[in-house]
Amino acid sequence: MIVRTVLLAIMLAWALQGQAQPMPADADRMQQRIDALAAGAVDPAGGISRLAYSDADIAGRELVMEWMRGLGLEVRIDAAGNIFGRRAGTGPDLPPILFGSHIDSVPNGGRYDGPAGVVAALEAIELLDAGDTATRHPLEVVVFAAEEAGLLGAKAFAGILDSSALDETVQAGMTVAEGMARIGGRPDALAEAAAAPGEYRAYVELHIEQGAILFEDGIDIGVVQGIVGIDWWDVIVEGVANHGGTTPMNRRYDALVTAAKFVLAVERIASGMPGRQVATVGRIRAFPGAPNVVPGRVEASLEIRDLDSERILEVFGHVRTQARKLAAADGTTIAFRKSPIHEVPAETDPRLQDIIEAAARRRGYSSLRMPSGAGHDAQAVAHLAPIGMIFVPSRNGISHAPEEFTSSDDLARGAEVLLDSVLAIDAAVW
Amino acid sequence: MIVRTVLLAIMLAWALQGQAQPMPADADRMQQRIDALAAGAVDPAGGISRLAYSDADIAGRELVMEWMRGLGLEVRIDAAGNIFGRRAGTGPDLPPILFGSHIDSVPNGGRYDGPAGVVAALEAIELLDAGDTATRHPLEVVVFAAEEAGLLGAKAFAGILDSSALDETVQAGMTVAEGMARIGGRPDALAEAAAAPGEYRAYVELHIEQGAILFEDGIDIGVVQGIVGIDWWDVIVEGVANHGGTTPMNRRYDALVTAAKFVLAVERIASGMPGRQVATVGRIRAFPGAPNVVPGRVEASLEIRDLDSERILEVFGHVRTQARKLAAADGTTIAFRKSPIHEVPAETDPRLQDIIEAAARRRGYSSLRMPSGAGHDAQAVAHLAPIGMIFVPSRNGISHAPEEFTSSDDLARGAEVLLDSVLAIDAAVW
Repeated sequence: MIVRTVLLAIMLAWALQGQAQPMPADADRMQQRIDALAAGAVDPAGGISRLAYSDADIAGRELVMEWMRGLGLEVRIDAAGNIFGRRAGTGPDLPPILFGSHIDSVPNGGRYDGPAGVVAALEAIELLDAGDTATRHPLEVVVFAAEEAGLLGAKAFAGILDSSALDETVQAGMTVAEGMARIGGRPDALAEAAAAPGEYRAYVELHIEQGAILFEDGIDIGVVQGIVGIDWWDVIVEGVANHGGTTPMNRRYDALVTAAKFVLAVERIASGMPGRQVATVGRIRAFPGAPNVVPGRVEASLEIRDLDSERILEVFGHVRTQARKLAAADGTTIAFRKSPIHEVPAETDPRLQDIIEAAARRRGYSSLRMPSGAGHDAQAVAHLAPIGMIFVPSRNGISHAPEEFTSSDDLARGAEVLLDSVLAIDAAVW
Repeated sequence: MIVRTVLLAIMLAWALQGQAQPMPADADRMQQRIDALAAGAVDPAGGISRLAYSDADIAGRELVMEWMRGLGLEVRIDAAGNIFGRRAGTGPDLPPILFGSHIDSVPNGGRYDGPAGVVAALEAIELLDAGDTATRHPLEVVVFAAEEAGLLGAKAFAGILDSSALDETVQAGMTVAEGMARIGGRPDALAEAAAAPGEYRAYVELHIEQGAILFEDGIDIGVVQGIVGIDWWDVIVEGVANHGGTTPMNRRYDALVTAAKFVLAVERIASGMPGRQVATVGRIRAFPGAPNVVPGRVEASLEIRDLDSERILEVFGHVRTQARKLAAADGTTIAFRKSPIHEVPAETDPRLQDIIEAAARRRGYSSLRMPSGAGHDAQAVAHLAPIGMIFVPSRNGISHAPEEFTSSDDLARGAEVLLDSVLAIDAAVW
């Protein structure tokens, strides 16, 4: 560990040798780009709506490509509609270092989820240009298409998007194939979007945390350890529906009473185990659902997330055992049906974690290693290249909402760590 | 107490003096009437649908009036559509003794809720006729209209139906005024349906229990102590909605976790206090309700029933205190909004309870004093006359469903107790 840290320090020093001192990012310029992107997607109903493949998405993409061209990047759009802006490297035939994020949004979302990473990537290019800094590896700034529609662009890039997805309808009201074509992709040549393993040196994505840990604890940079796996179950509690007036308390088999114990068991188990797993019961409904009828059936959801697939199953095992015990004691039953929602965890590369952490330290920024509880393009890219992720704080942890906010100073700190990380990757000798 | 019981025994002996021995009810005849009523209201979707004011309701009423006329009763329909079949008494100007129930049903309901009481009342008349037994008081068999639509006929009879109710729409798809007119009432003369306090000697209603106490405990007759009061509240738990992936367990303000503790507190408080109060959380919904979002808000219902209004408020007071404590501990809030649903308890007359209990004992039937957890026409009639209620067992406590069942032997036992009670009331000197 000490050896590795010393090595990293040497590598960073070498990477930054051309600079008199670390280049500071321009917070105002970054904010202007965030604002310019937001201006093109204001939704009268609140916040930002830049649904994948929509007119607003197309306008935002044009704006980003204009910025790329202004920075001298060579712009191309792949078959899935992903945008790449390339800056040449000095080394012969070295694989590019990729960094960026997405710009599409959820309906009535915020200004930072996605754009923060794209604007930070452009800022890194700005600083390299300003310092007249060359890299050995080519650099590619990427805008992945249709992240909020299910990481469609990143999955196509990783070669893991099934062509059946082309027929599905997205929120913008068209099929994926139609949308891809609208943004300059070629859905009929989808496979051409897939890069080969080894074709890219690494992928680094800056993103807002979408949680409140960095914000509440006053930490500048999150060093993402991985993107959690996700499993969903449908939970069905069966009791006996009965007249709420004529059924004495001691003759009830109230499915909601058992469900309430289940909700508390989930919370207790997920909180009580060591580790950072989370478990959520987000949906619940009692049947028949009348105020004067003892519920005979409750349907609920269970979601468990962790960086480790086995830990997810371990948590679930505890929950199921406990649930069965308490249902048996209540004279009810509880059943679990696995939902198709199943995301495997994606680990970030430990070397990239070290690089990002060291870059933050060198800039004098505090950092914290943490899982990403939300999904990101990076988890798809992990199939073909080492990935690293940098989190910047989200005010009050709010995301996918108009109130989403990250200060321009936080964005600038993130861009600086991104730049230094890219330079360190460029210099690294693994 | 002993004095009262002795008095009752004397009264009963006197009332029954004309009979060699207690007249047995004809279980087969009762079953045939139950079946005949059911045959006219079979719903292809299941069970019986004889919605108030519907064609099936009209057909059922015609059938009952035919039976009444066959028994020599003098039939009239009041302004609210209630049917009365009168058998003259021997005493000069004595107030009639009223007994009966209703025949309208819920959609896809059962064959016994209502008809049991009407058929038992007709059976009592059959037995009196067979024994050539005269009573001092006139007897009136009543079929109250639109019980399942909110005790409309009984409330009009009691003078407590607000005329604004005439404009409301019932499940049969018409206004109450239209429905009343359809069944021979005169909605424009609604006030004429109201009887004066003292105009009737007493009202006795036989009804299926709609609960499982008599059935499970093998008891023949329920001596109803009263019809419980009912209060509803809307319950709103507020926490903070958060991303289910990015919000660690220890930073959540999960409204559903608090709501689960609330559900268990309600169950514990209602079960733990002495008495027969019941409390039910029958409806619950979490918002936004997505499996991957920590619920920020939960809406639920709370219903409390008891024979004593003050007990209802006492239970609610405990629930509210406990709820506020646990919400405070969770960093959430819980609020209660009183719903307009508020039914005051209706006590049955203690003298009629004694008479019914003594009648059961004399027939050799087991009995239990118990509250009625469900509402009945009798609770409206209580505004103008002493009421008594006789419960017969409901198989598995099921009601308002096609599976609703009471055996013809149970019906016959109930009819015998009804007859003997009417005779005892006729003889009583209060």
